[in-house]
Amino acid sequence: MTDRKIVFYPEEKMILTGEKKTILEASQKAGIAIEATCGGKGTCGKCRVRIQHGAREPLTNVEENFLSSSDVEKGIALACQCRGYGNLEVFVPEKGNELSRKLSLESKKVLLDTDLRKEYLELEKPHVHDFRSDANRLIDGLKGKQINPLQLDVLSTIPFILRENDFKVTAVLAGNELLVVEAGDTRNKIYGVALDIGTTTVVGFLLDLCQGLVIGAASRTNKQNSYGADVISRIQFSNEQDNGLKCLQEDVLSVINEIINELTQQNGIDIGSIYQVLVVGNTVMSHLFLGLSPAALGKSPFIPAFSSMTVIPAYALGLEINHRAQVIVLPNIAGYVGSDTVAALLAVKIDKYTGSAMMIDLGTNGEIALACDGRLYTCSTAAGPAFEGAHIYHGMRAVKGAIEKVRIDKTVTVDVIGNVAPCGICGSGLIDAVSELVKAGIINNNGRIMSQKDLDGKIPEELWHRLRHSSSGQDFVLYYGTTDADDIVLTQRDVRELQMAKASVRAGAEILLKEADIKARDLNAVMLAGAFGSFVRKESILSIGMLPRVDERVVYSVGNAAGEGAILALSSENERNHAQYLARKATHVELSLRADFNRSFRDACAFM
Amino acid sequence: MTDRKIVFYPEEKMILTGEKKTILEASQKAGIAIEATCGGKGTCGKCRVRIQHGAREPLTNVEENFLSSSDVEKGIALACQCRGYGNLEVFVPEKGNELSRKLSLESKKVLLDTDLRKEYLELEKPHVHDFRSDANRLIDGLKGKQINPLQLDVLSTIPFILRENDFKVTAVLAGNELLVVEAGDTRNKIYGVALDIGTTTVVGFLLDLCQGLVIGAASRTNKQNSYGADVISRIQFSNEQDNGLKCLQEDVLSVINEIINELTQQNGIDIGSIYQVLVVGNTVMSHLFLGLSPAALGKSPFIPAFSSMTVIPAYALGLEINHRAQVIVLPNIAGYVGSDTVAALLAVKIDKYTGSAMMIDLGTNGEIALACDGRLYTCSTAAGPAFEGAHIYHGMRAVKGAIEKVRIDKTVTVDVIGNVAPCGICGSGLIDAVSELVKAGIINNNGRIMSQKDLDGKIPEELWHRLRHSSSGQDFVLYYGTTDADDIVLTQRDVRELQMAKASVRAGAEILLKEADIKARDLNAVMLAGAFGSFVRKESILSIGMLPRVDERVVYSVGNAAGEGAILALSSENERNHAQYLARKATHVELSLRADFNRSFRDACAFM
Ligand code: FES
Ligand code: FES
Repeated sequence: MTDRKIVFYPEEKMILTGEKKTILEASQKAGIAIEATCGGKGTCGKCRVRIQHGAREPLTNVEENFLSSSDVEKGIALACQCRGYGNLEVFVPEKGNELSRKLSLESKKVLLDTDLRKEYLELEKPHVHDFRSDANRLIDGLKGKQINPLQLDVLSTIPFILRENDFKVTAVLAGNELLVVEAGDTRNKIYGVALDIGTTTVVGFLLDLCQGLVIGAASRTNKQNSYGADVISRIQFSNEQDNGLKCLQEDVLSVINEIINELTQQNGIDIGSIYQVLVVGNTVMSHLFLGLSPAALGKSPFIPAFSSMTVIPAYALGLEINHRAQVIVLPNIAGYVGSDTVAALLAVKIDKYTGSAMMIDLGTNGEIALACDGRLYTCSTAAGPAFEGAHIYHGMRAVKGAIEKVRIDKTVTVDVIGNVAPCGICGSGLIDAVSELVKAGIINNNGRIMSQKDLDGKIPEELWHRLRHSSSGQDFVLYYGTTDADDIVLTQRDVRELQMAKASVRAGAEILLKEADIKARDLNAVMLAGAFGSFVRKESILSIGMLPRVDERVVYSVGNAAGEGAILALSSENERNHAQYLARKATHVELSLRADFNRSFRDACAFM
Repeated sequence: MTDRKIVFYPEEKMILTGEKKTILEASQKAGIAIEATCGGKGTCGKCRVRIQHGAREPLTNVEENFLSSSDVEKGIALACQCRGYGNLEVFVPEKGNELSRKLSLESKKVLLDTDLRKEYLELEKPHVHDFRSDANRLIDGLKGKQINPLQLDVLSTIPFILRENDFKVTAVLAGNELLVVEAGDTRNKIYGVALDIGTTTVVGFLLDLCQGLVIGAASRTNKQNSYGADVISRIQFSNEQDNGLKCLQEDVLSVINEIINELTQQNGIDIGSIYQVLVVGNTVMSHLFLGLSPAALGKSPFIPAFSSMTVIPAYALGLEINHRAQVIVLPNIAGYVGSDTVAALLAVKIDKYTGSAMMIDLGTNGEIALACDGRLYTCSTAAGPAFEGAHIYHGMRAVKGAIEKVRIDKTVTVDVIGNVAPCGICGSGLIDAVSELVKAGIINNNGRIMSQKDLDGKIPEELWHRLRHSSSGQDFVLYYGTTDADDIVLTQRDVRELQMAKASVRAGAEILLKEADIKARDLNAVMLAGAFGSFVRKESILSIGMLPRVDERVVYSVGNAAGEGAILALSSENERNHAQYLARKATHVELSLRADFNRSFRDACAFM
């Protein structure tokens, strides 16, 4: 068999593959991220790519199911299904590559209280009456500071660095640990990177730890996406494939190295001047990042391998920064309440409110925390995916082309991210749409989309025409495309998905209130964290009944709290220790064990 | 060029070499230790091997100089000179492979006070109401003990070990560090190895740290020997050759792995059950073992890279034991007073004497320490080599075939190690011989061997006949071989070597007494450490004037004190800390800087 060449655009990445691999398999080998929510099982239809050049095999049944004839005409294929006969040129749509929302922390000023420091030393040179060892000479130079025993790799460089630089060197310290000794005076160069490893996206912030400034932000799609969109498929992959864990770890490390490279190049900084990396992420992501098996996270009772703050040297992971840099992973609270939530709790200062405060972080998962009288409760719900567009017929994440706001009066008005023709709907748009449709009487209290027959004469005609019957039930057209197939619709199943999601969140929140023995009206703050929280209309979110019954004025958006918390923990040792304190303090409530959860959930399903 | 095969016996180790390498070069590649005192420069004549099979090139000038015709007949060649035409079989004499003297610590009972311990845990299994992380579950199981943050490599094994063993595991701890988690109950298996890395020989002791027993001892020639017998040539090699340092490090590590293999196999022990290795050696050996450049040790002011106790994980060095085992290198005092001396000081409890005590360790170097009123002084002399047979015409180390005792009355009687025909003379034999010859009037007070003419009729005829004139001056025959060339003689140069060595020791000892402001008669103990010290006759050593003027009754042999100290430091954390204390406390006196040293040295040269 001769080698077949596949080139992926827009990256122009070429790969030779001797076997008849699917495009998805080839992309994984090439390190190209294709959205593959179902992990290639052929059930999600998300792995759309466009064949620009080359011949493909006939459509599979799965493709016939998911692709319209206009798709097929354009050369759209499902990457997990499609194989080609020879060389192929494949265009991968850049879903999710514009993540400006998450990066809003750029240029943020931070309070510096880091344990990283540099000391410039002009040491006395050895002479016949001063024959201290190089190590002792150096440590004596750091006058009186308690220094841990030196690591061998540092020790081995010291004799050379001292002598090549006339005994004028800079010692880089993290706490009591001597990390590195550098030639000459490098005191003005101390950098760190805060990373938020999301299931979908990895975001990095570059901090100047001399000035206390976030000087750059960058993000990339998590390459692990090609093994499935959710943590469960990643856990499965790591359990079932040889080297699966290693593969997933390498994927995320390579994304991180790319991010760090971009950050340092843009700012003209030497990667060797990065001495600390602070990592947050959900518990599965933290495990995969560290190369720890997430197997026990995949089934009840969802046990993590570790939960405390973990510090490891960069060389142990192969991060391309100073090889002695410290990589700090913040603690997690439970299998489904990760260090990203801990970081968010830190950023919103959840424990500093008088009275009680709730934080809801809706990312790929939905974590809820409640602080009250010095106590802290957490739970996690499976709410997230719907808000990121998963399982929604025209769902997509909050990127260019997504409908993010919907207003319904006599007709339907939509706001689209990037002001382009919409190609789907994101979480905030979905909530808006449902909220507005309920108000318009088009969706009833039980969440059913009424038929044209039900509503004949009862709603404005323009709206009435948007009701459409499809194989899966009733649809409502949010936006008319050039052909019927291009219309963006809300389906009955979409409404059910949202209903489940919002009910989970509401039920989780109610259970925490019960656990803390307080009422919704006692809440002084309900904070919505995550990109989602920043863009959703409070009014809609309250109107669909996703939150406990609180006054709109206590609901706040807190933006990318996880990222902010990571930055805080990187720039301040105290904040870091406080994160550890919060994680230890939290009482995690496992909802699946609560007899009262199902009832709460059922109660929360209705729209009223 | 076709490959040439060289097989080394008795190891039967084969090596293919495509170039025209000398046998010494090939042996280095093959990892075979050939004694090469001059490092292959062709000046020592020690690298004798026997060509068992195969054709060699004509003798070089150097070989003609060093080899007798009977040597040549037997196939003897100098490895650094000889190249062959094709395949060769080479027999390497096993000089120094029988080191029973150093191993005398076998079966020694030790007081156990180790910081290594095992705890068997039967942990509660996780369930829906107990979802602690695996790491926390384990640490909670170690009730209340302060445990350092877990290392990633340990962490990564924990989820599997716990689940595969029904949550019944053994935790191995060293101090606050969790080293390893093992399946089931392994409490009765805790072993450690104490290593004394000598310039010439590496000795290892296997300790059962449950029972507190030395259960095995083994030794090997330090493979670095093939790069030169003394530390100076090793330093040069590491400075001048590409990869020289790495090469020397690998040599000593491979010797250590061999020793550990032998020890564990003989005792039916799994190498994974070795959790600690305690290393002592002179400062250069410690540096090479750790892969630290000894460059600054090669010239005044002789600065070591490190001097404190150093602990590193076994995997960082590639020692074939439990990969998480701790390798502990005891502290050194100065460039030429190493951790072996510190260990010896620990073993002889130098600081526990009432009054004052001196220890003299005569190995390859000669270190002297003086404790007095809570103070501790050290110095080092270049005395050693002569006592190990270096630079002595028929010199050899104290191994089988060495003359170790000499008595002279009307004739000469020699004791030979192993009761075989002698093939050389070791340090204790040399001192005996000179002492006896001085007493017999054959060597005068200045150290000159008198000629037959000088002594005509003045000494017994049998002795008179042993005086022989050679190109290098006057010789004295200690033992008649089958031919003249096989005779074992003491040369004038040998006497000069000994004279220099003993004068160095004496002068060093006198300087320390002066520094401490005490007199020789104040010494309550003069301890002779090292294999040498155990076998030399006190009477002779005093009679040649090597020691300050003390009563014979305060002179003790303390045997292999360095090895004993290493064992102590391995079996007891307190002893280890005390070693660190002694090393810090010591005031090192650099003899070369003392204006009074030369005078003391000159005074000490005479035999009287
Ligand atoms: S259908 Fe292809 S990845 Fe889901
Ligand atoms: S003469 Fe061969 S090594 Fe010295």
